[in-house]
Amino acid sequence: MGCDYNPEQWPERVWAQDVVLMREAGITFATVGVFAWALLEPEQGRFEFGWLDRAMDLLAEGGIAVNLATATASPPPWLSRRYPQTLPVDREGRTLWPGGRQAWCPSSPVFRERAMSLVEAMATRYAEHPALAMWHVSNELGCHNGRCYCDVSAAAFQTWLRARYGDLDTLNEVWATSFWSQRYGDWAQILPPRLAPTHPNPTQSLDFARFSSDALLEYYLAERDLLRRITPDVPVTTNFMTLAHFSMLDYWRFAPEQDVISTDHYLVHIDQPTENAVRSELAFSGDLTRSLAGGGPWFLMEHSTSAVNWQPVNRAKAPGELLRTSLGHVARGADAVGYFQWRAGRAGAEKFHSGLVPHAGTDTKVWREVVQLGGILRRSTDLAGTRVHSQVGLLFDWPSRWACDLDSHPSSLVRAMDAPLALHGALWRQAVTVDPVAPTADLSAYRLLVVPTLYLVEDAAAATLHEYVAAGGHVVITYFSGIVDQNDHIRLGGYPGAFRDLLGIRTEEFFPLDSGQVVTVQPAASGPGTEAAWTRSTWTGSLWTELTHLDGATAVARYVDGPLPGQPALTRHAHGRGVAWYLGTALDDAALSTVLGRVCRDAGVQPVASVPAGVEVVRRSGDGRSFLFVLNHTPEPVRVEAHGHDLVTDTPVTGAVRIAAGGCAIIREGLVSTGSGGAGQG
Amino acid sequence: MGCDYNPEQWPERVWAQDVVLMREAGITFATVGVFAWALLEPEQGRFEFGWLDRAMDLLAEGGIAVNLATATASPPPWLSRRYPQTLPVDREGRTLWPGGRQAWCPSSPVFRERAMSLVEAMATRYAEHPALAMWHVSNELGCHNGRCYCDVSAAAFQTWLRARYGDLDTLNEVWATSFWSQRYGDWAQILPPRLAPTHPNPTQSLDFARFSSDALLEYYLAERDLLRRITPDVPVTTNFMTLAHFSMLDYWRFAPEQDVISTDHYLVHIDQPTENAVRSELAFSGDLTRSLAGGGPWFLMEHSTSAVNWQPVNRAKAPGELLRTSLGHVARGADAVGYFQWRAGRAGAEKFHSGLVPHAGTDTKVWREVVQLGGILRRSTDLAGTRVHSQVGLLFDWPSRWACDLDSHPSSLVRAMDAPLALHGALWRQAVTVDPVAPTADLSAYRLLVVPTLYLVEDAAAATLHEYVAAGGHVVITYFSGIVDQNDHIRLGGYPGAFRDLLGIRTEEFFPLDSGQVVTVQPAASGPGTEAAWTRSTWTGSLWTELTHLDGATAVARYVDGPLPGQPALTRHAHGRGVAWYLGTALDDAALSTVLGRVCRDAGVQPVASVPAGVEVVRRSGDGRSFLFVLNHTPEPVRVEAHGHDLVTDTPVTGAVRIAAGGCAIIREGLVSTGSGGAGQG
Amino acid sequence: MGCDYNPEQWPERVWAQDVVLMREAGITFATVGVFAWALLEPEQGRFEFGWLDRAMDLLAEGGIAVNLATATASPPPWLSRRYPQTLPVDREGRTLWPGGRQAWCPSSPVFRERAMSLVEAMATRYAEHPALAMWHVSNELGCHNGRCYCDVSAAAFQTWLRARYGDLDTLNEVWATSFWSQRYGDWAQILPPRLAPTHPNPTQSLDFARFSSDALLEYYLAERDLLRRITPDVPVTTNFMTLAHFSMLDYWRFAPEQDVISTDHYLVHIDQPTENAVRSELAFSGDLTRSLAGGGPWFLMEHSTSAVNWQPVNRAKAPGELLRTSLGHVARGADAVGYFQWRAGRAGAEKFHSGLVPHAGTDTKVWREVVQLGGILRRSTDLAGTRVHSQVGLLFDWPSRWACDLDSHPSSLVRAMDAPLALHGALWRQAVTVDPVAPTADLSAYRLLVVPTLYLVEDAAAATLHEYVAAGGHVVITYFSGIVDQNDHIRLGGYPGAFRDLLGIRTEEFFPLDSGQVVTVQPAASGPGTEAAWTRSTWTGSLWTELTHLDGATAVARYVDGPLPGQPALTRHAHGRGVAWYLGTALDDAALSTVLGRVCRDAGVQPVASVPAGVEVVRRSGDGRSFLFVLNHTPEPVRVEAHGHDLVTDTPVTGAVRIAAGGCAIIREGLVSTGSGGAGQG
Repeated sequence: MGCDYNPEQWPERVWAQDVVLMREAGITFATVGVFAWALLEPEQGRFEFGWLDRAMDLLAEGGIAVNLATATASPPPWLSRRYPQTLPVDREGRTLWPGGRQAWCPSSPVFRERAMSLVEAMATRYAEHPALAMWHVSNELGCHNGRCYCDVSAAAFQTWLRARYGDLDTLNEVWATSFWSQRYGDWAQILPPRLAPTHPNPTQSLDFARFSSDALLEYYLAERDLLRRITPDVPVTTNFMTLAHFSMLDYWRFAPEQDVISTDHYLVHIDQPTENAVRSELAFSGDLTRSLAGGGPWFLMEHSTSAVNWQPVNRAKAPGELLRTSLGHVARGADAVGYFQWRAGRAGAEKFHSGLVPHAGTDTKVWREVVQLGGILRRSTDLAGTRVHSQVGLLFDWPSRWACDLDSHPSSLVRAMDAPLALHGALWRQAVTVDPVAPTADLSAYRLLVVPTLYLVEDAAAATLHEYVAAGGHVVITYFSGIVDQNDHIRLGGYPGAFRDLLGIRTEEFFPLDSGQVVTVQPAASGPGTEAAWTRSTWTGSLWTELTHLDGATAVARYVDGPLPGQPALTRHAHGRGVAWYLGTALDDAALSTVLGRVCRDAGVQPVASVPAGVEVVRRSGDGRSFLFVLNHTPEPVRVEAHGHDLVTDTPVTGAVRIAAGGCAIIREGLVSTGSGGAGQG
Repeated sequence: MGCDYNPEQWPERVWAQDVVLMREAGITFATVGVFAWALLEPEQGRFEFGWLDRAMDLLAEGGIAVNLATATASPPPWLSRRYPQTLPVDREGRTLWPGGRQAWCPSSPVFRERAMSLVEAMATRYAEHPALAMWHVSNELGCHNGRCYCDVSAAAFQTWLRARYGDLDTLNEVWATSFWSQRYGDWAQILPPRLAPTHPNPTQSLDFARFSSDALLEYYLAERDLLRRITPDVPVTTNFMTLAHFSMLDYWRFAPEQDVISTDHYLVHIDQPTENAVRSELAFSGDLTRSLAGGGPWFLMEHSTSAVNWQPVNRAKAPGELLRTSLGHVARGADAVGYFQWRAGRAGAEKFHSGLVPHAGTDTKVWREVVQLGGILRRSTDLAGTRVHSQVGLLFDWPSRWACDLDSHPSSLVRAMDAPLALHGALWRQAVTVDPVAPTADLSAYRLLVVPTLYLVEDAAAATLHEYVAAGGHVVITYFSGIVDQNDHIRLGGYPGAFRDLLGIRTEEFFPLDSGQVVTVQPAASGPGTEAAWTRSTWTGSLWTELTHLDGATAVARYVDGPLPGQPALTRHAHGRGVAWYLGTALDDAALSTVLGRVCRDAGVQPVASVPAGVEVVRRSGDGRSFLFVLNHTPEPVRVEAHGHDLVTDTPVTGAVRIAAGGCAIIREGLVSTGSGGAGQG
Repeated sequence: MGCDYNPEQWPERVWAQDVVLMREAGITFATVGVFAWALLEPEQGRFEFGWLDRAMDLLAEGGIAVNLATATASPPPWLSRRYPQTLPVDREGRTLWPGGRQAWCPSSPVFRERAMSLVEAMATRYAEHPALAMWHVSNELGCHNGRCYCDVSAAAFQTWLRARYGDLDTLNEVWATSFWSQRYGDWAQILPPRLAPTHPNPTQSLDFARFSSDALLEYYLAERDLLRRITPDVPVTTNFMTLAHFSMLDYWRFAPEQDVISTDHYLVHIDQPTENAVRSELAFSGDLTRSLAGGGPWFLMEHSTSAVNWQPVNRAKAPGELLRTSLGHVARGADAVGYFQWRAGRAGAEKFHSGLVPHAGTDTKVWREVVQLGGILRRSTDLAGTRVHSQVGLLFDWPSRWACDLDSHPSSLVRAMDAPLALHGALWRQAVTVDPVAPTADLSAYRLLVVPTLYLVEDAAAATLHEYVAAGGHVVITYFSGIVDQNDHIRLGGYPGAFRDLLGIRTEEFFPLDSGQVVTVQPAASGPGTEAAWTRSTWTGSLWTELTHLDGATAVARYVDGPLPGQPALTRHAHGRGVAWYLGTALDDAALSTVLGRVCRDAGVQPVASVPAGVEVVRRSGDGRSFLFVLNHTPEPVRVEAHGHDLVTDTPVTGAVRIAAGGCAIIREGLVSTGSGGAGQG
């Protein structure tokens, strides 16, 4: 357990007390120096490391390992004063000034030069420091400066395009510049997709998203390579933001370049329909981070003990929620959990962000729960090395997400993250663990794949999916998947162009639904893929319907009303030795659970455990050990079958464990289960 | 029937197939080259016409006439790169960059010079080409660059003002610059109404709207005159946008400068309360375009086979709706209907816009309906030359609309288009055909005039209306009409200043209603203008009420509650040999139908036919021919009395025609009707 | 009674008639020249005073005193044309152009030089004019240009900061620049809080608000000092805007610099939950202005006879409302009431703003009510010199307001003005008169203080409040008070840091509620501060709850549900000889009335009179005279006990007065009351 620690924001006299309290809480590492550039280099070329030396020494003496930030996340005022061309510019041409944080253009050579100078000084200074355990490059890359539209960025974009396409004819073809008179005759004519009179070129926008992600990747690599040169044995990371609402970076491209995969996660209550949606978003983030880490352990660098400060209404955590949140990450593979931040700030824009030490001090709910968590984690050290195993993969990709969320689409209500969260949530509700996977990854280990609104699919990925099913895999594909290729060009001949054959259907036209509009969906009475229970229920669809012809598939459910009465809503198609389902509308949660439950049984996917609604279970196992995490999100106590030892209460469990409302258990299981949850790979 | 055709967006190998399919569908013309500048002139002064030559030749061989665009709608990237001063700037000072379309300042001399160079090259190249049937200047003028606030535009605005006002004293008087210390001492001090600390000068804003419309008119004339010089025998048009939500151009000023009146129309579902409102907006657009064409035939250059791409949710058309939509335009005078576009795009910002050939190909609902429509139109060639005749005029004016929609008004909820659409819709619901007319037009042929929210009225128009009623005409004027003169100066002495005498009322104060607020309106029990049936109903008003004194008029309905209980809501005044009604609130649809029904009977206006609710009927007649269009917008089959031959089903009609749910009929009537629908003028 | 008079907007031939009508209405003063700069100085250095001479002469002859504006509120077009650096720039970097009004940067030396030149010319010209009664500096300072972010303002901000902090180390400490790498090494690096990638530094924002207010104060003083030099005997004022929605200026700092305290007030219907909220906001404004005037008489320079033009829907006043509104200001201490403006404008952005002479002329509701009011005021001259006396003070402060409304707080739904208006409104509903007071003022005269959401409290103010209670005072403090010091630094150790001891509580964490979320609050069955009646009612809370520990206080009400069931919602603490209450949530109106009624009884605060709900009563007294104002806001007649003479109807009152629905009375009381309403100080 660790935390962000910013000693520079507090009088030096409290630092010693900080270390004492950290030890009391069970803090074993601290992330230091994230926003310290202005103090470390108060004017260009003059470094002041004394205060950091003293803080690092104190931590070392206290046995606290340091995840040392390179401090480049936010430049000091002197930098933009002297080099105003380093300031980012937004799509509307507005300069983003200092006063907040991260006011730098990712493509700025001047910024990079100054940043590298600092990194070199830092690395040299602390290369041998006993506290140094890891390098943390910058911070939350892309968080506020993910896309810069300035002239410097324009030039970098041109360079990136030249490297990608080689010649202008190819770019003109890919960008379809014969449309709207956009043909380029010179690389210098190409600009970022700045504010235009109307809809910008979508491929230009998509490539600009790719470029912007790559610009920050290139920046990251520059820091990393410099650090590796000076301190080759110190692992390097930077914290991802695998939250559902952050989309700036293609983490599939970043992940291989990290020594340790780390991420930040905060509960977001904005626009969430239910508390369960908030909770399953956390699970999605954890699962995604684990996938980025190749299934191995990962590092939750930041989360919060209670409220944050940047949402319209910042909910405090209920008693027990701190524990449940933190263990939710551990359950899904985090071997280290850190908090932002040690002490709740006294001043500045984040002073109302919770910390481990609240404004009210240690006689508080927060501090007591932190200490409790510390104790649990100390009892749980043999979790390290165990893994979560999933039988279900969920195809997930950033370029598809970027393209899907561009404008001029059939419906602006269809957002790229809706279906992934909905399908992941439906599986989460029935205790099925899921791995988000890159579409081009090796998919053969999964019994079932879900493909939620994968709008953009490259040829190779489409082929992989065909082969997967042909070889016996099961797949569920939803609306607005497989529509375009990597250039955002329509796959012609009927939708979904990439998956028509696989699904045995052909859609000729989309009929998106209005906001609030709902259609009734009726499951078929019998036939492959249907069940007696289905016919007793009525499902509803929203957002989307489409005029779909069966071309080998069977209609498993049809629309009763709406624009397309009688037309198929859900189809099933035997393809090779496998099965491919297509879902053409956004089903309500209950119906989606029913459908996915049926599909899982079809595919031989089993839940981790049989638990009441609202109880989350995940298993970590490996090397002969097995741990069952049980998180009771309900307001009632629950009883779950288990054998072993509960690390939360430190008591033996024989047959069943009773978990209080809002409580948790980590059962170190008596016998290694090789049954459910795909532990066979353990 | 025709379409926009952009061969440059497709491989040349499919062009031949395009022509074959066009002939199958009954396409007889194609609009070509709209966004081809960048391909035709890939760098300044170097033209590449080869590909267009080949496309034009193919079309000529296929017997497809070409409406050839001058291709100036959207400049190529090299132009703004070389001449950045041609880019438009919005009210907030933001440059609008390339990447979309139409990124040009209408007042830019540099842009015009480059555009004229292209037009001259085009006209010279294709002057003798057999396919060339019409010139299409630019495209949808004003669509995205209707108002530019840059320094170049500022200078052009100063020039325009100097021409309009001659001297600064006059301008200062008209703009009322003694208010808020705005008196100008030099033309160079005058700017477009850029972002200001608070509400801008309304007359400045109004004149800037006039100037902006004139700037594009002047631009149009420059292209037209050049074309006429080179190809004097080829008619010239540019497509208007007579959609309710487009307001940039004063088409009464454009119309006389066109050889053929053409327009684009798309169904807009945003903010429409009912499906009927969507349909009657189409009828309004058609009626307005016919009026712009002086009652003669017009050309629907663009509409869509199904969904568009630029609305938040883009509804696909239901089966049969393509036919009903297209014939709705034909019914109201269109002698040619074109679609945007031939093939649904494969890439670019409009790739999800429907086309005649969908992404899914020709085995589709869309294609089948297109072919069906082609057949109907082939059977209907003798429609050409017939006209729609209306007994009702609706005063409609762009400067009034611009002025009405400025800020700092009694209620920002009152929008200039609300009342025109509401009154037109009420007459549409009872099968009364309406001509939108310019307030200064010859009104004498109409039995009834409606004047919906004609906020700004020039003296001459007010006098015309007085004379019209004095001579026996009937008029219905609604709230917020006749308030200001052409300079947006209040007509003092009581509202509505321009019409007080005519209406026999004097309003001393407006009492606008809040959003959602409704008042009850009670029709009078008896007296002129009332009917027994009225007193059994209760009406509601919204948006607006006013404190009105009777000064000769009779109160036909009064407010029961709201801010003005007991005060007149609807008045009737005998003026000369005619009658003038005033409606002081926004009545609900049913009440408005009741009132207008009564007024029509009073004025001797008769419906085209007696039909069930939801069925639209229009008659075209002339030269001894008569055609009754019947559009069944309801979900049930209907029966309508008719005699003749139905061109839709190609079957005789004796006594009555049965039209399926959502279906249409075009009855070539056996006997030319000279009765209802004002056919007496035919 | 007076008005804004803009003769320059009307033909000179109507001026004589204006004076005749003014006399008829009872107008005794006119504010002249507010927006006349462009006419007075049509080009730099050339003055044209002739027209103003003639207008002033006419007014003098008619016996109308002139409140002469210095005419600097809005510069003429030539100024910004010649000196573009005088234009303001907003936070996003957008220049605010001429076309509206007040397009000037408050810190511009060039603007000030030109303005002073005009002021000097005006003062010199009219020093001896018989009509000149008062100088009106500029107009509504800060209304549209309250905060300018241009480079000129940046330099002025640096100068202001240098004066405030002396050295950069202090500034860095106060601004907490060790957070997010913001440490400044040079004054020139400091900028206004311009658009940044994310949340700006809150102390920078707070200081920029202080600076911006001071910049306009400094500007005001420059004009005032120049005027005093030339016309030492003429009083100087500028109109405040003590409306709830205006927050740009710290009027506690402005007030001592004025010879006469004047303000503008307009009823604002936007976002007001009830009509009563609209009315009590007027009362709040009047009370606040009176406090700014040190309890003495004040001058309502502008209000409206009926609708304004700048709200989304501009409600006209109902019959009688003009009278009730105007007397509402008089009741709270206004000794002069002026209207904007004489004639409703014929043109320009405010032409739909009501005036004394409507567009419809004098045969109107408005004019008749104006004349009626003139008569009443003529009968009421001995009101002059009487005062309103309050037993309750309400702590109110602009820096706290600015700081509270910054972002990154626990809940953006908590706005600084909510609780002040809610608590003032609850007291208003029970006829208790309240003085808003500066936190650092002498509080000893009050029996009760309410402290609504006083987020920022300086040490001295906190100490004053402690002493006040210790000495026997009663205080009610609400949620989100006493959180930070003057630098927006958290007062550590538990909330509310400034008042923990005083309140006998310690809050460890905030639990803000979502929009629309409501919690049930249950009053305690017995104990100090509770009443039997309470336990029969159920209260609701919204917006806010907090986890509060009793540390000497008693819980008087607790949450039943929501995030904190069972925790204290309302506490009471005996401190010294006084009592301190804490309210941790936003109670519903009825519950708030109950609680404050109880607190008032506890504190010995009595209502002005016992009146039915919806009836407002205020007493003005002094020098042996006493006047009871009764405003009947209900739609029914009411009966109120009184003795004396009603100045509204000019009839004697013996025992009781009956006041019509929406009517008013001003009872010149027969015997000077020394009872309720604190008249003991009279």
